[in-house]
Amino acid sequence: MNGMACKNPAMVQASDFAFSGLHIPGNTSNSVGSRVTPVAVTQIPGLNTLGISMVRIDYAPWGINSLHTHPRATEILTVIEGSLEVGFVTSNPENRHITKILKKGDVFVFPVGLIHYQRNIGYGNVVAIAALSSQNPGVITIANTVFGSKPDINTDLLAKAFQVDKSVVWQLQTKF
Amino acid sequence: MNGMACKNPAMVQASDFAFSGLHIPGNTSNSVGSRVTPVAVTQIPGLNTLGISMVRIDYAPWGINSLHTHPRATEILTVIEGSLEVGFVTSNPENRHITKILKKGDVFVFPVGLIHYQRNIGYGNVVAIAALSSQNPGVITIANTVFGSKPDINTDLLAKAFQVDKSVVWQLQTKF
Amino acid sequence: MNGMACKNPAMVQASDFAFSGLHIPGNTSNSVGSRVTPVAVTQIPGLNTLGISMVRIDYAPWGINSLHTHPRATEILTVIEGSLEVGFVTSNPENRHITKILKKGDVFVFPVGLIHYQRNIGYGNVVAIAALSSQNPGVITIANTVFGSKPDINTDLLAKAFQVDKSVVWQLQTKF
Amino acid sequence: MNGMACKNPAMVQASDFAFSGLHIPGNTSNSVGSRVTPVAVTQIPGLNTLGISMVRIDYAPWGINSLHTHPRATEILTVIEGSLEVGFVTSNPENRHITKILKKGDVFVFPVGLIHYQRNIGYGNVVAIAALSSQNPGVITIANTVFGSKPDINTDLLAKAFQVDKSVVWQLQTKF
Amino acid sequence: MNGMACKNPAMVQASDFAFSGLHIPGNTSNSVGSRVTPVAVTQIPGLNTLGISMVRIDYAPWGINSLHTHPRATEILTVIEGSLEVGFVTSNPENRHITKILKKGDVFVFPVGLIHYQRNIGYGNVVAIAALSSQNPGVITIANTVFGSKPDINTDLLAKAFQVDKSVVWQLQTKF
Amino acid sequence: MNGMACKNPAMVQASDFAFSGLHIPGNTSNSVGSRVTPVAVTQIPGLNTLGISMVRIDYAPWGINSLHTHPRATEILTVIEGSLEVGFVTSNPENRHITKILKKGDVFVFPVGLIHYQRNIGYGNVVAIAALSSQNPGVITIANTVFGSKPDINTDLLAKAFQVDKSVVWQLQTKF
Repeated sequence: MNGMACKNPAMVQASDFAFSGLHIPGNTSNSVGSRVTPVAVTQIPGLNTLGISMVRIDYAPWGINSLHTHPRATEILTVIEGSLEVGFVTSNPENRHITKILKKGDVFVFPVGLIHYQRNIGYGNVVAIAALSSQNPGVITIANTVFGSKPDINTDLLAKAFQVDKSVVWQLQTKF
Repeated sequence: MNGMACKNPAMVQASDFAFSGLHIPGNTSNSVGSRVTPVAVTQIPGLNTLGISMVRIDYAPWGINSLHTHPRATEILTVIEGSLEVGFVTSNPENRHITKILKKGDVFVFPVGLIHYQRNIGYGNVVAIAALSSQNPGVITIANTVFGSKPDINTDLLAKAFQVDKSVVWQLQTKF
Repeated sequence: MNGMACKNPAMVQASDFAFSGLHIPGNTSNSVGSRVTPVAVTQIPGLNTLGISMVRIDYAPWGINSLHTHPRATEILTVIEGSLEVGFVTSNPENRHITKILKKGDVFVFPVGLIHYQRNIGYGNVVAIAALSSQNPGVITIANTVFGSKPDINTDLLAKAFQVDKSVVWQLQTKF
Repeated sequence: MNGMACKNPAMVQASDFAFSGLHIPGNTSNSVGSRVTPVAVTQIPGLNTLGISMVRIDYAPWGINSLHTHPRATEILTVIEGSLEVGFVTSNPENRHITKILKKGDVFVFPVGLIHYQRNIGYGNVVAIAALSSQNPGVITIANTVFGSKPDINTDLLAKAFQVDKSVVWQLQTKF
Repeated sequence: MNGMACKNPAMVQASDFAFSGLHIPGNTSNSVGSRVTPVAVTQIPGLNTLGISMVRIDYAPWGINSLHTHPRATEILTVIEGSLEVGFVTSNPENRHITKILKKGDVFVFPVGLIHYQRNIGYGNVVAIAALSSQNPGVITIANTVFGSKPDINTDLLAKAFQVDKSVVWQLQTKF
Repeated sequence: MNGMACKNPAMVQASDFAFSGLHIPGNTSNSVGSRVTPVAVTQIPGLNTLGISMVRIDYAPWGINSLHTHPRATEILTVIEGSLEVGFVTSNPENRHITKILKKGDVFVFPVGLIHYQRNIGYGNVVAIAALSSQNPGVITIANTVFGSKPDINTDLLAKAFQVDKSVVWQLQTKF
């Protein structure tokens, strides 16, 4: 119950608890200008049931880590290089937007299940290291989930949900 | 640790465990044509720490319970009257849209933290009863959180997140 | 760890999260005049690890859902049709009987592990929908467990436990 | 979150973690011929949130620890002196009676929430030490809860639940 | 999720929940003069997921149960025979040593994860029964782990950790 | 139940979720040549109940983060600069020493409750960022706890535990 390390103590090896390469910048040549490199139970089998994982996030200038939630984890993030705008929005009915500009060495917390984002607001690259309170936190990117699901969510429904014309929904659905 | 009932067994009363009025239709005269009537720890103090709550949902014809997540609860829903389209979208990278038309007596499950919705697809009213695996499940309505937070999320950031022109974002932000 | 939906997101289908028939009245032609129709992990595989389930309960006039406990779940119940007497008893040393007459639309909570019951106190059928805070709540019916276990609990022991003559225990044991 | 010891490490004393007197035989001069001496969070404040407690149980010849459940704990018991019949009954629909005669040095487990009992089946006193997986396990004695609650559960209801004449229920209710 | 008993109720037997022999003194003819006899999930398969286990500990005169931690369990201990010095040390920065002399019938709690010990301080044998809040608590004996690991921890590192000459570390490493 | 952010959503501010200064090297001028800078619930109140925290660790050349355990957390660590020897020891009876040399960008996991350490094995400074699966993980440094507790653990007892002469124990006790 408390992880593979405990279950078969005579057979585990150091490699079951290790991963290499988190110093390598991720490729940010994509539409949002950021890249997440995960180190979770898929990368380190020894994390199973231990309730934690880590990620590196690279941001090109003005790149964003788009609005998303982790259904099973709180996130704590520190900026290694550059300046980063971060924010999350509280649940109904307040929908308060809690936001801050982080500099190198700043740490910020995104509570479990809340929608959050980060954005590089400078002209150089930004690097962040973050940890999540699950070995398998999951990621739900709002735009991809809402407008890029397979198959699509009904256009009439989305038009009503976002209070816009169906043509706007079609435009959004072509992007994801 | 297991609820107020256990902590002060000599003082609890039946009213600490009861709520009235879940048979009363909710007012669906609003932009989405639906209404959620919650029965959670705010309504029933005795639910504290007991890990469950209930809601009634009313849907006018073609009304929707807009895309949302519960950060701390799985939901199980049954249709009392009418026909209801329901769906949720799985997490990255698949973003699979799992959807179904429910008829009276059908039951459906929305796993914790996933974005989901319901829509009345008929010409009469629809009534559903649902339960959630937390006494304080929380609700994050996607459209309100993303485009109606207080204060607003930066428009440039949202334009990049949804891959649309800033004018589309402004249009969306005026609606929430 | 957080449900089958998360483990194999590429393979789940809507049918893994759905059940049909909760609008169908259960057959109450039995000695207690009630019937529970469960929708738990046996009926919906996608509920696995998600911590919730649902039941429909039908009560013939004066029918009872006999005294029982759920070893792993709190229950929240709402009356869909009719009037229902409900109650639970707190633990030692108070053994307080918390009881209430529920009407249509009333909601009541039975805390985890406590002995509780419901009784139709009217001349028509009663229908209730309840939810439980486990995908596999378990049911322990007191009378069946105490007097109808297989094999029987020792008669002398039961006579001392209930402070009655062994003949009364024999009488009870023949009923279950 | 992990106990008073952790919250105020500079102020706790050895007495916050200690209790004396578990070697003293409990007074078994009562209707069931047994006595439970608990050592839980009420007796040892330092147990708070630590998830364990202990009891001593004394049994006069043919004394019983009557049928009961712990809503929040599994129990593990060892016999220090004498021979003890123990048993528990599994949940519906099997209601299997799992029973065993324990001798000095035998250990037995009663799973969380299940109805169980012990009985001294010899002519000398029996002593057992048991531990429970909660600092506040709770005890629900079936006979006292069902027939001795305050106020009484309705006699008609109990007559139907136990499938006996109301006069038998009255007889039982006078005993508790 | 709540133990093997619940998963296969039709197949479990009393022997799945039982263990014999805890009344037999353990052999204390070893370098520390004590012996732990465990009754955990390895000895009782039915304990799986139930969150509790039991041990008997025998101490020869002046024997010790050397400094150790349980990574997954709080321990509650009662003295059956003799007098026992017990203690645990709180975490950084206080490192407070909480200690007490226990007599027959005294009970003491060792909070989860803290380093603790017991020592027989009399001229007769001591017997204790203890319970742990996990079916698989784990044991980490400090001396064996630090100076007797396989392979050894680097001597320079240990010399710096304990602020002593390497010759002292070598001396310690030869003992375990 | 899920953090301060949820309890008072109308009152939290960005500063409740933020900390500054993790880029500042810690002062390693001490006997072990390392310094841990914690960012836990004491530093960020918004972490309460969210189950995660972060630390920066600086190591002077040949500096060590001495053998210690976290009673309530697994740790995941990544090397930002330099080369670092890391290791943990499994529980009894194997006491296996799992060790690895980490380079910049390597990630390693220390399972909850196990004794572990890190050592700078190069001639430059080393910097690591680590995260722990609790907002209040606790730290138990073995040497300080065993030989530097207040008051001291009995010297005879420690001599027997570590199988050395009392003079060696005295020597160790003077260092902490």
